[in-house]
Amino acid sequence: MSHNSFGHLFRVTTWGESHGPAIGCVVDGCPPLIPLSEADIQADLDRRKPGQSRFTTQRREADAVKILSGVFAHPETGEQVTTGTPISLLIENTDQRSKDYSDIAERYRPGHADITYDAKYGIRDYRGGGRSSARETAMRVAAGAIARKVVEGVTIRGALVQIGPHKIDRARWDWDETANNPFFCPDARTAELWADYLDGIRKAGSSVGAVVEIVADGVPAGLGAPVYGKLDQDLASALMSINAVKGVEIGAGFEAAALTGEENADEIRIGEGGAPDYLSNKAGGILGGISNGQPVVARFAVKPTSSILTPRKSITRSGEEVDVMTKGRHDPCVGIRAVPVGEAMAAIVLADHFLRHRGQVGA
Amino acid sequence: MSHNSFGHLFRVTTWGESHGPAIGCVVDGCPPLIPLSEADIQADLDRRKPGQSRFTTQRREADAVKILSGVFAHPETGEQVTTGTPISLLIENTDQRSKDYSDIAERYRPGHADITYDAKYGIRDYRGGGRSSARETAMRVAAGAIARKVVEGVTIRGALVQIGPHKIDRARWDWDETANNPFFCPDARTAELWADYLDGIRKAGSSVGAVVEIVADGVPAGLGAPVYGKLDQDLASALMSINAVKGVEIGAGFEAAALTGEENADEIRIGEGGAPDYLSNKAGGILGGISNGQPVVARFAVKPTSSILTPRKSITRSGEEVDVMTKGRHDPCVGIRAVPVGEAMAAIVLADHFLRHRGQVGA
Amino acid sequence: MSHNSFGHLFRVTTWGESHGPAIGCVVDGCPPLIPLSEADIQADLDRRKPGQSRFTTQRREADAVKILSGVFAHPETGEQVTTGTPISLLIENTDQRSKDYSDIAERYRPGHADITYDAKYGIRDYRGGGRSSARETAMRVAAGAIARKVVEGVTIRGALVQIGPHKIDRARWDWDETANNPFFCPDARTAELWADYLDGIRKAGSSVGAVVEIVADGVPAGLGAPVYGKLDQDLASALMSINAVKGVEIGAGFEAAALTGEENADEIRIGEGGAPDYLSNKAGGILGGISNGQPVVARFAVKPTSSILTPRKSITRSGEEVDVMTKGRHDPCVGIRAVPVGEAMAAIVLADHFLRHRGQVGA
Amino acid sequence: MSHNSFGHLFRVTTWGESHGPAIGCVVDGCPPLIPLSEADIQADLDRRKPGQSRFTTQRREADAVKILSGVFAHPETGEQVTTGTPISLLIENTDQRSKDYSDIAERYRPGHADITYDAKYGIRDYRGGGRSSARETAMRVAAGAIARKVVEGVTIRGALVQIGPHKIDRARWDWDETANNPFFCPDARTAELWADYLDGIRKAGSSVGAVVEIVADGVPAGLGAPVYGKLDQDLASALMSINAVKGVEIGAGFEAAALTGEENADEIRIGEGGAPDYLSNKAGGILGGISNGQPVVARFAVKPTSSILTPRKSITRSGEEVDVMTKGRHDPCVGIRAVPVGEAMAAIVLADHFLRHRGQVGA
Repeated sequence: MSHNSFGHLFRVTTWGESHGPAIGCVVDGCPPLIPLSEADIQADLDRRKPGQSRFTTQRREADAVKILSGVFAHPETGEQVTTGTPISLLIENTDQRSKDYSDIAERYRPGHADITYDAKYGIRDYRGGGRSSARETAMRVAAGAIARKVVEGVTIRGALVQIGPHKIDRARWDWDETANNPFFCPDARTAELWADYLDGIRKAGSSVGAVVEIVADGVPAGLGAPVYGKLDQDLASALMSINAVKGVEIGAGFEAAALTGEENADEIRIGEGGAPDYLSNKAGGILGGISNGQPVVARFAVKPTSSILTPRKSITRSGEEVDVMTKGRHDPCVGIRAVPVGEAMAAIVLADHFLRHRGQVGA
Repeated sequence: MSHNSFGHLFRVTTWGESHGPAIGCVVDGCPPLIPLSEADIQADLDRRKPGQSRFTTQRREADAVKILSGVFAHPETGEQVTTGTPISLLIENTDQRSKDYSDIAERYRPGHADITYDAKYGIRDYRGGGRSSARETAMRVAAGAIARKVVEGVTIRGALVQIGPHKIDRARWDWDETANNPFFCPDARTAELWADYLDGIRKAGSSVGAVVEIVADGVPAGLGAPVYGKLDQDLASALMSINAVKGVEIGAGFEAAALTGEENADEIRIGEGGAPDYLSNKAGGILGGISNGQPVVARFAVKPTSSILTPRKSITRSGEEVDVMTKGRHDPCVGIRAVPVGEAMAAIVLADHFLRHRGQVGA
Repeated sequence: MSHNSFGHLFRVTTWGESHGPAIGCVVDGCPPLIPLSEADIQADLDRRKPGQSRFTTQRREADAVKILSGVFAHPETGEQVTTGTPISLLIENTDQRSKDYSDIAERYRPGHADITYDAKYGIRDYRGGGRSSARETAMRVAAGAIARKVVEGVTIRGALVQIGPHKIDRARWDWDETANNPFFCPDARTAELWADYLDGIRKAGSSVGAVVEIVADGVPAGLGAPVYGKLDQDLASALMSINAVKGVEIGAGFEAAALTGEENADEIRIGEGGAPDYLSNKAGGILGGISNGQPVVARFAVKPTSSILTPRKSITRSGEEVDVMTKGRHDPCVGIRAVPVGEAMAAIVLADHFLRHRGQVGA
Repeated sequence: MSHNSFGHLFRVTTWGESHGPAIGCVVDGCPPLIPLSEADIQADLDRRKPGQSRFTTQRREADAVKILSGVFAHPETGEQVTTGTPISLLIENTDQRSKDYSDIAERYRPGHADITYDAKYGIRDYRGGGRSSARETAMRVAAGAIARKVVEGVTIRGALVQIGPHKIDRARWDWDETANNPFFCPDARTAELWADYLDGIRKAGSSVGAVVEIVADGVPAGLGAPVYGKLDQDLASALMSINAVKGVEIGAGFEAAALTGEENADEIRIGEGGAPDYLSNKAGGILGGISNGQPVVARFAVKPTSSILTPRKSITRSGEEVDVMTKGRHDPCVGIRAVPVGEAMAAIVLADHFLRHRGQVGA
């Protein structure tokens, strides 16, 4: 069962609400003897941290992760390494503004999980979105930092490729640029355009959607499994589970619908060392659910947050019609911070499938 | 683990290769006392059956399903009903043309799983695609027929909304039309256009992609679970696991990326009987991973099959460069037959989540 | 979920009722390239087959197993080997005596699952016990035959060590003897005693319980996992899932309760090649849930079947008090046929843990 | 997968080492709106706490549990109740005596997991047994306290029925007595005998095994599932997963092997209100893996701890022969503290099966 767990052999279970005492996760099944320190995880967390530019929410949290179990001094080197037992990670919630939540308790924010949590459970922790808050994604990033170490040799990178109607120019793609702007944008010129565009959105108290692209280089051929353990299937599951995601595609994705068989099938030649050399990568590195050695490419669409300054029609818990407007901290494009989260989820899927493949096939 | 199983409480395990003696599945966890006959399942299978028009593969199979376990005469009525024990379904493979497969054994068809199965396992049943054949989807449809009965009251329908570059006109959407043309097209006029277009594709020995839309009406609010058992996440997993699917979206999907928060959030009023009445359905019936009572809407993109008459560059198992051309039976648009398969997978997800919700919350 | 499935990476799902058209199983996750023929499996099945002596039920079934998927000709040798995809096995039910079951349908046999299946599901296939029949164990033996091949190098043997009050003399233990008598008894002299004793039981229309011991030699150190994936825990689960089993123990088992720490702890010296050499095996080869390289030893108690000629007080489905007496075929000691079943379940546990260990640790 | 998780719908994941900063667990799948406070859990924890008499280890820990997530004020009553999201529990480790562990790091204690953890992982946190320490069972008791609330109406009690060779007299069984002596012994006179006996064991620096019996009254008929989700199977798995347990039995257990069918089958009459009335309970409340409405009775054997003052032969990590003697805190009969742990594991199994049954059958 997978209510709050993801993965099988590399299994991540997260817990915690936005304004509870802490959030955390348990990573079970990690191979032993992998060097792991809090600093390793913190580096990834810091890429996701809010409040790093004017384009993300101003909630400020140290987001300092603690490792509570599952690592120990290596018997020879003394370095902290994984022991093969569960790794428990915890981040205390420090910036819980003490305020009156009675308003939120009663009014359902449109486009949010408020109404459905109540419909399902008859109760919800409404403070800051509770369990449905994007704060949960901090633990995905933390677990993903460990997953990356399980698939050492694989490079997993993400980029924002569209904000609102504005797409990047792929001809200008430069991975190094993603570190030079607050959008993880691989195209410097588009990043400038986005800055202007998002300033307008932000000042209007509005919000806008985005598309994120994740690329994993160095994935060995053979990961994935027919027919319900497909690598693309598990990537779709992983990415769709991220807050606000409404679409996922692999390789050519939805564009493949408009292509002919001649245009879509990636031709193959013999490459260096006798390995297959694909002349294109419409498949996004996956054939029949199994990796083919090409870069694995996935994309996901993030909807605009409904937390906006314009009043919207909604109802209350007790069944009255009201107008809802979001006050306070505001995130004009939640897609930006989804980039490290998408990377992390891809890393978790790849680590899980790496272990699953090794279990069955032994390679 | 889910190599060849899907679902948790309503769990489907499929087995079989395209040209082995039979294919089959085991449905475990089905509630007892549900009326079930082979005819019930056959009706759904017949909608998927190949060879029903010139637009799908001419492989002809009776596809006659047998129920081998899990049903018994009701103690009072004598009607065949489920007993709560595993339901085993089997379809014999009858149209396995005896031919020389040595060609296929050696040559990797581009865009197919031939090369990745070999990379993973060092062996594959190459006859007709073996395990990676779309023939496996017959068992999804069979299991889906049972799933529909678990969520009685929910209507799950699918339609083809795009073939190649040609989309339907949504203003002309009429569910009844999907039974009147060989495309499951809800728009009669577009169906005519597609017939001409696909004739051209077929005569050229080419193929083309498609987009399928699945709509589930009557889904109660509350199905799904945070944060890794989200209803949309499991739909994405289910639909992406179908052969040739390259993208999945929920509600507004990728279009949501270009929208503002004002445009995207579905406003709410009090409707009849006091239930929430949503003024739009950009969310596709799911908020925070949990159904909100609106129609659940999912879409998926199917790539064009690589089995085309034009020679394509590829390699052999032993590492030689060759040209590969598909002879024999040919399917110009595999997306057509994906419609009942998509419906079935959606039914399985909904049945599973219905039981999961009932288990935890008891409703 | 595990209603009708067992194992994680090596996963067995069984289906079928005693008097339905067939019984079967799906083995998922088996490594590829393992030689496998129907004859391999049949050999194990024949050891379990009923009607082989006057001491087991006279139901006669060919129990001829068919492999329906998951094997294919090795690309070089042409030998039938596993492909890594699901292996479907099926045995047709051929000896379903057509008789009037109305009696069984209504009357609950004491000590049987009749009453609880009805309590749970409101229905049951009552013919021959339906799903609760020991016939299901044929598929455990079949799946176990495959599991044995996954852990080649490990020898898994079973023996009957007690029938009714009569235990074997362990000083006379000789594995070869288990093939020389109809009881899988490793002590020839006790086997003779049992023959007399059981003849008396049989003629009286009575039945008696038994204890089975399973020993796995050659299990490498390191299989199992803390703290809910313990090897002994999974053996307990596997053996307790066998029909009529009421107790399971590992190593010294219940006798350990009466021992002191001095008596119970297995002392260790350095053995040949530097490997640990244990001076005793009270632990049954498992410490902290993980194998230590010693023989893994498990024992389980099988209750006497309640299908006896003496009338017993019971009730009917409709709530009337009746006397129930079992007519027809009769099994004086169901523990005998439990020996190959216990071996099979141990093999499945070991195969699963071998793959799990390889997945996490890579050895 | 279940390395460090137990259960399916009611799922417990534990983490932490004996001498790390903390131990904890995540309980996922708990129904919403169940009143739950730290005090509720603490009460059960206090029954297990070490250092309560001279017969258990003198390690003193506050064992104060914190709830970090998954509870919130009820919207009407304001009472703290479960929300249906993961409940994270944490206990800080406060009595980690800072001492030199270099001895333990190198020497394998016989009968302990030291050697097998190293064999499996190549590393272990050796301080106080690390992950293999019985300290982990505190989290089982904590999770069990929540499980009890899920199956309200079911009473789950445990008792020690044997210490070393000394069994209780069942004719004197009085549940109330279990609170009157430090052994959870239901027989006051035997408790006195045990006190003398254990004083001798303790002064000799020795240890001794025990047998625990768990009884669940009020379990409704219908819990459990054929054929690999049997209630007795899952109880066996749950109880065998407890540290030092070497055997598990249900109802008559191993004694059933020596019984005849006449003696063993529980006869049935119509009882009050028309419900079945069993004239005996050899089955331990379970038939065919499904509860029959009788008390569910399980027993498990706990081995004597190997931590004794007598030197025992062992080896070191680097392969030298040594003698090992346990200094410091000492637990003459670990079976005593296993009583609340066994209760908790039974509660978790019952809660899980209650939800599973409700999911499939809806009752």
